Amino acid sequence: MKRTAYLSDLEPYLDQTVTVQGWVARRRDLGKLIFIDLRDRSGLLQVQVEPGSPAFAEADRMRGEYVAEFTGTLRLRPESQRKEGLGAYELIADSAQLLSAAVTPPFELSKGEDVSEDIRLKYRYLDLRRPEMFQKLLIRSQVSAAITAFLTAEGFINVETPMLTRSTPEGARDFLVPSRLSPGEFYALPQSPQLFKQLLMIAGVDRYFQLARCFRDEDLRADRQPDFTQLDIEMSFVNQEDILDLNERLLRHVFKTALDVDLPSPFPRLTYQQAMDTYGSDKPDLRFGLPFVDVTDLFAGGEFAAFAKAACVKVLATGELTRKQIDELERVAKQNGAGGLAWVRRDGEGLSGGISKFVGKVSGELLSRTGVEQGGTLLFAAGEWKKAVTALGAVRTALRDLLHLASAGFETVWVTDFPQLEYDEDNQRWTYMHHPFTAPHPEDLALFGTQRQGEIRAQAYDLVLNGFEVGGGSVRIHDPEVQRQMFGAIGFSEEEAHAQFGFFLDALASGTPPHGGVAWGFDRLIMVMSGASSIREVIAFPKNNKGSDLMAQAPSSVNAAQLAELGVAVLE
Amino acid sequence: MKRTAYLSDLEPYLDQTVTVQGWVARRRDLGKLIFIDLRDRSGLLQVQVEPGSPAFAEADRMRGEYVAEFTGTLRLRPESQRKEGLGAYELIADSAQLLSAAVTPPFELSKGEDVSEDIRLKYRYLDLRRPEMFQKLLIRSQVSAAITAFLTAEGFINVETPMLTRSTPEGARDFLVPSRLSPGEFYALPQSPQLFKQLLMIAGVDRYFQLARCFRDEDLRADRQPDFTQLDIEMSFVNQEDILDLNERLLRHVFKTALDVDLPSPFPRLTYQQAMDTYGSDKPDLRFGLPFVDVTDLFAGGEFAAFAKAACVKVLATGELTRKQIDELERVAKQNGAGGLAWVRRDGEGLSGGISKFVGKVSGELLSRTGVEQGGTLLFAAGEWKKAVTALGAVRTALRDLLHLASAGFETVWVTDFPQLEYDEDNQRWTYMHHPFTAPHPEDLALFGTQRQGEIRAQAYDLVLNGFEVGGGSVRIHDPEVQRQMFGAIGFSEEEAHAQFGFFLDALASGTPPHGGVAWGFDRLIMVMSGASSIREVIAFPKNNKGSDLMAQAPSSVNAAQLAELGVAVLE
Repeated sequence: MKRTAYLSDLEPYLDQTVTVQGWVARRRDLGKLIFIDLRDRSGLLQVQVEPGSPAFAEADRMRGEYVAEFTGTLRLRPESQRKEGLGAYELIADSAQLLSAAVTPPFELSKGEDVSEDIRLKYRYLDLRRPEMFQKLLIRSQVSAAITAFLTAEGFINVETPMLTRSTPEGARDFLVPSRLSPGEFYALPQSPQLFKQLLMIAGVDRYFQLARCFRDEDLRADRQPDFTQLDIEMSFVNQEDILDLNERLLRHVFKTALDVDLPSPFPRLTYQQAMDTYGSDKPDLRFGLPFVDVTDLFAGGEFAAFAKAACVKVLATGELTRKQIDELERVAKQNGAGGLAWVRRDGEGLSGGISKFVGKVSGELLSRTGVEQGGTLLFAAGEWKKAVTALGAVRTALRDLLHLASAGFETVWVTDFPQLEYDEDNQRWTYMHHPFTAPHPEDLALFGTQRQGEIRAQAYDLVLNGFEVGGGSVRIHDPEVQRQMFGAIGFSEEEAHAQFGFFLDALASGTPPHGGVAWGFDRLIMVMSGASSIREVIAFPKNNKGSDLMAQAPSSVNAAQLAELGVAVLE
Repeated sequence: MKRTAYLSDLEPYLDQTVTVQGWVARRRDLGKLIFIDLRDRSGLLQVQVEPGSPAFAEADRMRGEYVAEFTGTLRLRPESQRKEGLGAYELIADSAQLLSAAVTPPFELSKGEDVSEDIRLKYRYLDLRRPEMFQKLLIRSQVSAAITAFLTAEGFINVETPMLTRSTPEGARDFLVPSRLSPGEFYALPQSPQLFKQLLMIAGVDRYFQLARCFRDEDLRADRQPDFTQLDIEMSFVNQEDILDLNERLLRHVFKTALDVDLPSPFPRLTYQQAMDTYGSDKPDLRFGLPFVDVTDLFAGGEFAAFAKAACVKVLATGELTRKQIDELERVAKQNGAGGLAWVRRDGEGLSGGISKFVGKVSGELLSRTGVEQGGTLLFAAGEWKKAVTALGAVRTALRDLLHLASAGFETVWVTDFPQLEYDEDNQRWTYMHHPFTAPHPEDLALFGTQRQGEIRAQAYDLVLNGFEVGGGSVRIHDPEVQRQMFGAIGFSEEEAHAQFGFFLDALASGTPPHGGVAWGFDRLIMVMSGASSIREVIAFPKNNKGSDLMAQAPSSVNAAQLAELGVAVLE
């Protein structure tokens, strides 16, 4: 038989004969009646089988997670039992068919949230039967379709770039693939399509996008996956404003289509400098306030030695905190490079507790600058600018979680004007902050090779959503001369640059249009959109944090003949 | 400056000031004028720069493949010089800007077709600037967007399946990826998402699709790529008719959207038996006729020894052929397993040439059964059925190419009812024809394990377009008992089956709905749709037939530290 419709689409068939198919979510026997909650991806419907029904014998064989079909009359449940949505209906079965039996599930699906993640991953095909898991797959698919439709309508061409490509020593670790046809040589799985998308611009494709699988062999503790998905976009003959505008319109379309949520137009913007200075983070969560107030001047040269010589003193005003909460926040501050966490409490027209005895002289000014409420707390960080704001930024985020400050909904912000270069203290050298093809601001070009090259601003931007970096990109260098300056600034000789990026530099000299683009962390975006707690929740078959697929049991050992053919051996 | 529009979208701006950007396709100096053909992805526009123009000095620096911008007045060319489309217009430049210089290209783009493929692949970013190459990328993108829109509207969920998965010894060779976190163990890149899409059905996803990258480490001579793209579809609670219907509607939508071509409804169908019997191929090209006529009975027990005892004698009637053409066709027949190629020519009311002296008695019957025209040729194949039809099928295809028989346009056909099992002569054992999860026809189930198991028909089907297999699929086994019979038929013990597919068999026993699906060879489909001669033409950055990316120079050797970290070594 054919089903009449998905369960959630049955309402037009009230009082008619319908056929339904799905899984037995629950079976109850009440007196002589059998009640079966039938589940499909759209919902749950109660099926009632009466003892006299021809369906009874077949229904009586059914157990949890069996696949079943019922035909019968759809009717409203008695008024007292009527619930929302499908819960208002029931099916009185005239016939039943067991389509497929099931072994007893290793965990109860309705209690899936409480089951260890290892078990859920091992039996992922059961875990995905839970409606909340299906919902995440559905949102992911809707977002991907909305992106494709929007970008296609805007003239973007979906181009698939290579999955077996060349290993480059820079950046994260590559996954390698031995080549059977060229023994001793290896492909690398792509960390991103960066070079290929720029080559497509050089090729005149003009507007490109791809939902691209990318691979990084990194440590996986921080909610990462060895392979992940990136929405990759690149455009020619554009400037930064054009790219930001396109991204805003795309993200608004995506939110409207998949969640019926209106994002603002335009998105707020902060420069990197502002974001760090005000929130201590280059991905500030704007679902709550708590901006930093600069009070360096209040303490400069003053009596409080810890602050007097600090290049930067920042303060953040929050509500009343317990001693225990302050201790917890101090722990966070210390983890993030601070020596401690100075604090005071507003007490009437003055300040008490913490470092209050050192701030008497400036307390009036502190109260007026911060506007701290009665009983509220001021939290301080002091020191070198970046260290101070970073530590206080971590405290701010911890406050969000501690006090549940984040509002419901979604807050976007562009962070722009990232530094072009950063100094790598470990290796005592300058390196790029985004990637070596990021274009600097034209007015900062003269700083290359000077003492001040750390001040060069890049035409680079991140898209931040609820405190997560969900996208990032840049205008690219299209002038080979600027590219040479950039390689020079990070200490690449012409030979090194050519050894690593030779074919790309050749391409760059072949008529490169001005271009730029963006990459969205697709898994992370879906995670935020669907309210999931981890990217593993929005990936159908994820790896655990050891890089293992617990269901398929990958990776695994392979037979010697396979390896011999590839010209490689396992080291003992 | 911002461009006003793509070149092909300029027509509304006639006699207005416009800004255009693109590549210098050609520069000519005529008298004191400079003419530049400017190219973007949409077309070519002639720009005229007069000696007095402020644009002149800048335009004078421009060479082939430079990136340039012009602002000026768009006007109609003089009537005598007016051509089609953009060729009717020219831009009289008021200002010019050189955006990016270019080294002299290693080949002339307008003569790209004549350049060796190695050069084109090495400089793919130049090759893709050719309008005919961009057109193929565009069709590919349009088809992919049309598929996404259609399937999403039909309730299909786009799910991304793992790229780092488990190696299975069956089937084609896997690409392996050493795991750093589990030294000595390997991931495999997926040959197809087959198991995962079935797991998604078991998970209740109900309708799934994906444009999935797949990997097979096979020999590459026959226009294959190590990685390729597959449109993967799977549906639950359906039968074969539902799947064929969905595929037909999807392909019609795709052709209409991307090419404005109407495909028929429904598609013609042939069983495997019919296709082989009539065209000697399970992917018959129906753009021309030349069906086989069975004449086994005419020769059975007769005087012509070569045919008298043959289990099968087939004849094909074609037009007049030269001796040289017949020799060429005989070569094809021999390459395809025939001992030779018997032929006769219609000559008035009789037959002459070739084997005419052996067919005198049946010539009248041959003429009437085949309807061969005056001067036309009959070509014979005889022997064991499959060998005879296969050889004559190859002759039929060779005739198509020799005589240019294929009509313009597109001819689709479903080939259904493939055998479930085939006998592997090399290894002296039965094996599956599609894959081990294909469902047999229910009425043939009793033949499992009997002498006649070779007659079991699978619920398997191929979608054939112009003689190319562009899709294939099956209804899957959802009953663990049938799956056990199937493994038994191909000689898999319970232990072997579990060692290889254990987690999948566990899943199959967990409540599996009836389901089935299809996979389209996406590259091949785009190749046929765009009239390309190879799948390399419809892949942005393909590998050559040694599996090398000549542009990026992959695969390559990697440094020893990388390998050591992965726990592998290169064998000397």
